[in-house]
Formats: sequence, structure tokens, C-alpha cells
Amino acid sequence: MAERRGLVLVYTGHGKGKTTAALGLVLRSLGRGLRPRVFQFIKHERAAYGEHRALAKLGVPIEGLGDGFSWRSRDLERSAELAREGWRRAAAAVGSGEWDLVVLDEVTYPLNFGWIPVAEVVEALGSRPRHVHVVLTGRDAPWELVELADTVTEMKKVKHAYDAGVPAQKGMEH
Amino acid sequence: MAERRGLVLVYTGHGKGKTTAALGLVLRSLGRGLRPRVFQFIKHERAAYGEHRALAKLGVPIEGLGDGFSWRSRDLERSAELAREGWRRAAAAVGSGEWDLVVLDEVTYPLNFGWIPVAEVVEALGSRPRHVHVVLTGRDAPWELVELADTVTEMKKVKHAYDAGVPAQKGMEH
Repeated sequence: MAERRGLVLVYTGHGKGKTTAALGLVLRSLGRGLRPRVFQFIKHERAAYGEHRALAKLGVPIEGLGDGFSWRSRDLERSAELAREGWRRAAAAVGSGEWDLVVLDEVTYPLNFGWIPVAEVVEALGSRPRHVHVVLTGRDAPWELVELADTVTEMKKVKHAYDAGVPAQKGMEH
Repeated sequence: MAERRGLVLVYTGHGKGKTTAALGLVLRSLGRGLRPRVFQFIKHERAAYGEHRALAKLGVPIEGLGDGFSWRSRDLERSAELAREGWRRAAAAVGSGEWDLVVLDEVTYPLNFGWIPVAEVVEALGSRPRHVHVVLTGRDAPWELVELADTVTEMKKVKHAYDAGVPAQKGMEH
């Protein structure tokens, strides 16, 4: 029988498809009877995009941990504190062994802003129960994560509808 | 109100996450009340991977059009004929307007083998009803598709668990 073990997957790069690929893994894991859970580090806790509506119907917990942070945010200290609180909850979920797949969506942003120490994430991944898959997404994944991961894909933008003036479409981009 | 129109998205490249990202779009579209349908050009009609089990539960039609073609296939003529038959069904679905999102998974392989004429795909996409989103996946997307698409992402392999001797994991890779 093939060896069973949890994988660490990273979807990074500036192209489209990082969060979307993580959602696809959630769907596939459900089809195999696994228990997935999703944390989104940038999305607001009241976000209700297509993925939230669909996962709610499927009974998959999905939590926005952020305040919809953007470069126009007024209160960076508050954003940083939210990210740290969110990370504590996500780390507990990874370590608990109750979930077979934990998605840390857009986690690279609070990492790269210095709000969450990379060393804490490396420690949490390294000490997790053996069966737990973890998927991390976001641009510019820190090298420590790339080194630790089993599989890393860089999503490269070749072209994007937005650049041609096409607005984001419901059900496709959000 | 933002303009509503169907997009053509291409996920190509040699990295992981192409099919998975397409599945994520299916999930997101469901959350917005859209009607998605999936055609898989390589997978066998009796394939029952994680995505088939999950989409069946969600009532999303997913059809394997191939014979699990690999380079070891004995009967290339049969593979080619299956691809052409499958394309006729997929093209009809794209043109019907009954589906808001049609996924043509791994369609680049029969295109690049010359089994399906690229010009036919370009024609079908160009003449489709305006609201229909189409997602095409697979390595080495023909340039005609890249040119026609609204959004193109190249999935680049940075590293892959398989290269380190880790076998494919159920619920993650299939």
C-alpha cells in the first residue's frame, strides 16, 4: 500500500489561481472523506464571496481572519493584531489533528509584513500530526516555507482580463 | 453596475494546480448560483477520483471523455476518436448557453496531439453565448488559445513531492 502522509503545499506567484487551487483541493479532499478547514488571512470575517457560500453549504468551516486589509488601511496595528490572533487559531487547528487538510489562504502577506514570525509557522508545520495536509497561498512565499514544503507551484501571470479593462466577474474571481 | 460577461481562462504550465484551480472555480461559481459543467479529456469515463465523488454530491456533471490515455496506450486511433467524440459533446455544451461555466480539463493534450483541430476550439469559443465562462487546462496551451483567452496563468513547478519519492496522496492529488 502506498505510504500515507500529510503534505505541505505552497501556491505562490503573481498569477491567478492560488486561492482557487486551494479551494479545488478542499473539494477533492471532501470527495475522499477527509475533513478540510479553511482560514483566510486577508478576507474579512463577514466576507461572503462565492467560496464562502459554497463551503458553508458543504459544511466546511471557512473563516476570514482579517479586516480586508489593503494598502489604504488606516490602522495597521489593528491589522497586525488580527493576523496574530488568527494565526493562533490556525496553528491550534493544524496541531489538533482534528482536520485532515488546513488551508492558510493568503498567509504570506502577514508573514511578509512581519506580523507573524515565519519561525512560528515553520515550527507549527514541523510538529504537526503526521496525517495533516497544509496548503499555504499568497505572493512571494518566504524561502523557509519553500524549503520546508513538499510541493511548490508558482502561478505566473501570462495575461489577466483586468489589464484589458474587464471587471472582476462574480462566481469566477470572487 | 459592473459589466457581466463570460471569460475564457487558461491554466497551463508544468506545475501542479491546473485541474485543481479549475475545480476551485466550479466551487466558487456554485456559491454564486451559477451552473457549472466539467469535461475531462484524459480521464476515463469510469474515473472516480476525489473530484468526481465531490461533484457528484453537489449535482455538478463531470464526464471523463478519455481512456486514461498515457504514452503506453496501445490504440492511439481509439484515443483520438474518443477525444473527437468528447469534443463534439463539450462544444455543444459551450454553445448551448445552458451552462454558465464549462471546464475543458486537460484539453491541451488532444489539441497538441492533433486529435482536435485548434481552429474548431477557437471557433466554438468565439461564437459562444456571451455569459458563458470557459476554463481550459493542460500543459503547453497552443498560442491561439493564449491569444484568445482573457486570463492565462502558467503554473510553474518549483518543487514536487513526487521527486522526493513521496507517492501521490488520495484526496490531494487524485
